[in-house]
Amino acid sequence: MEKRFVYADNAATTCVIPEVLEAMLPYLQGEYGNPSSIYALGRRAQKAIEDARAKVAAAIGAKKEEIFFTSGGSEADNWAIKGTLARLMPKGKKHLVTSAFEHHAVLHTAENCGCEYTLVPVEKNGIIDPEKVRAAIRPDTAIVSIMFANNEIGTIQPIEEIAAICRQKGVLFHTDAVQAIGNVEIDVEKLGIDMLSLSGHKIHAPKGVGALYCKRRCLPKNLIDGGAQENARRAGTENTAGIVGLGEAIKLAVSDIPEKIRRITPLRDKLIEELTKIEASRLNGDPVKRLCGNVNISFEGIEGESLLLMLDNCGICASSGSACTSGSLDPSHVLLSIGLGHETAHGSLRLSISEQTSEEDVRYIIENVPPIVERLRAMSPLWERMQKSR
Amino acid sequence: MEKRFVYADNAATTCVIPEVLEAMLPYLQGEYGNPSSIYALGRRAQKAIEDARAKVAAAIGAKKEEIFFTSGGSEADNWAIKGTLARLMPKGKKHLVTSAFEHHAVLHTAENCGCEYTLVPVEKNGIIDPEKVRAAIRPDTAIVSIMFANNEIGTIQPIEEIAAICRQKGVLFHTDAVQAIGNVEIDVEKLGIDMLSLSGHKIHAPKGVGALYCKRRCLPKNLIDGGAQENARRAGTENTAGIVGLGEAIKLAVSDIPEKIRRITPLRDKLIEELTKIEASRLNGDPVKRLCGNVNISFEGIEGESLLLMLDNCGICASSGSACTSGSLDPSHVLLSIGLGHETAHGSLRLSISEQTSEEDVRYIIENVPPIVERLRAMSPLWERMQKSR
Repeated sequence: MEKRFVYADNAATTCVIPEVLEAMLPYLQGEYGNPSSIYALGRRAQKAIEDARAKVAAAIGAKKEEIFFTSGGSEADNWAIKGTLARLMPKGKKHLVTSAFEHHAVLHTAENCGCEYTLVPVEKNGIIDPEKVRAAIRPDTAIVSIMFANNEIGTIQPIEEIAAICRQKGVLFHTDAVQAIGNVEIDVEKLGIDMLSLSGHKIHAPKGVGALYCKRRCLPKNLIDGGAQENARRAGTENTAGIVGLGEAIKLAVSDIPEKIRRITPLRDKLIEELTKIEASRLNGDPVKRLCGNVNISFEGIEGESLLLMLDNCGICASSGSACTSGSLDPSHVLLSIGLGHETAHGSLRLSISEQTSEEDVRYIIENVPPIVERLRAMSPLWERMQKSR
Repeated sequence: MEKRFVYADNAATTCVIPEVLEAMLPYLQGEYGNPSSIYALGRRAQKAIEDARAKVAAAIGAKKEEIFFTSGGSEADNWAIKGTLARLMPKGKKHLVTSAFEHHAVLHTAENCGCEYTLVPVEKNGIIDPEKVRAAIRPDTAIVSIMFANNEIGTIQPIEEIAAICRQKGVLFHTDAVQAIGNVEIDVEKLGIDMLSLSGHKIHAPKGVGALYCKRRCLPKNLIDGGAQENARRAGTENTAGIVGLGEAIKLAVSDIPEKIRRITPLRDKLIEELTKIEASRLNGDPVKRLCGNVNISFEGIEGESLLLMLDNCGICASSGSACTSGSLDPSHVLLSIGLGHETAHGSLRLSISEQTSEEDVRYIIENVPPIVERLRAMSPLWERMQKSR
């Protein structure tokens, strides 16, 4: 098969699709008014933002006034958790419940925000047991934050059950849905979600824009104070072009999720089937309760980073764990949380495919990964040692 | 004179210029890699960000590693102040010195961040007396934050003197330079500035991107925790396109500031000269120590908002105070701080011109403002009352 470019890292980021760029461009050209200005140029920018807000709200079953634009998913996570604790600590609620395999925007917030926190363990299949969330809730718990779908292994969590437990216990429930949006149908009302973080750049909008959905009754203390933007909840001149892009992108992303799942799942399963035929490999995360585009496989005896660089040479973009933590030498905390040893975790490959992935792309990956794994193992002292100890 | 479109609100926001958009576009198209990804597509995005960082650093005389990208000026202000207080409060430094006419991103941060704070008063000409800053510093002061140039009246502050006093007193010095960048030559080393906030959209970059300059020794506690972006100081996937736009825009904005001042100042002074000929008008802020593009004039007996709407009808975009606070019925805190009464403050007009403003634009404004003021006064009960009481 001829060399091709295959982007299989859609969980790290996605391309801006032409429809989204087209919607944004006027706001990077003539429609540059400050949305807070009262003249027509400003009012048109304001209207574009409100239209985008309506699209985001519609995409998740929320009300327009429950959507607050941010600079991305990390800011939304920080705001939801820090702002809720800042609001409720004076009332004696100083405890956070989250899970061992959250995104670092949640985990490092837990570590740094001056609260007490409990990490709910993750089951071996990458799913959280709602009863363990219940057990972690204390009388002084302010908020529970459990991600909708994991960013590395793609496992989809029992959000409705967890939300119901939180409601029973009188505790707020936040979910980081950055990976789930556009891949899972989400209705915040039906699911009982109080707060939800989402990001544009995972759904073909540009980087640098996201949103926090938040019910009126539980608005967190501001993270960014200043002007009266976003109903005086998030200051700073609005990123009009980015917000318009997010609105357009989310509208498209949720327009036919069942069809997307129908199309992508067989490609994902083909990748899993073929790549787990490689000796001493394992699929990480539940084979069924996972995002339609997520494949995460560990290969014993190799370094994920070397694998990625060799795949890059073949034109394949993939990752080993989360892009946000690349550069770090620590193994993925997500893979450790589901029971992998350090060495196994180091040899993992995440492929995240999208609507744009073709059958040829999948065949190309399947053709290229096995010989690379073989070559890497041939030079791996670790693999040699493992072979001898068998 | 025929009807034309005159944008005279560059202090609120600016258009993205074609060179900047051109620099950004690749990152909204094919170059969509996550800057944290290790494959070539990601590394190219990382390189683009580092190139932009070098441009921002060069523009203000800083080192590359002292520049941290944010979602804008408000985030940078919040981060500098909240993060410094969070870092120094455990050491007993719980006090902030700022001024009465700061941007709300600083003032509301002061009010909401749980610190004690002192507002230094502003002189009648809109300039802060450095000795009053000195007098406000206490043994427990952590940080002084004084804006470089005011956003409404354009007055340029004696930053070097204030910074010197802070250094003497062993207190950190932050300045919001959002309005000054590109209009005043800034060398953070020479001026002795520890932290500086800047924003892209005031200098022809897009909305939603800014930066905090910060010396290594005084890095504030993170505002947004999570991934390891920005040297683990500001989490969230980088807004690559916006950052590239900021880099290009700031390079152009500082390329010939003396020439810009030479070209715009006569236009500004022509506006001031002609518009203050209107009966019962006054220029707000020092006539000389002000940004080359800033005009702020109060007209007794009228409502600024009505004036703006009538100017909009003529195709002139202008503002009355800061765009960030429009929608509020309170008079400008900036104008109150320099001693204006509520009624006078309500009748103020800010015109902020740029490199793109022509002599014809200025003539058009001068032609249109006086008859509008006259018409508004003719219908104003306040003006009638004032005339009778003379």
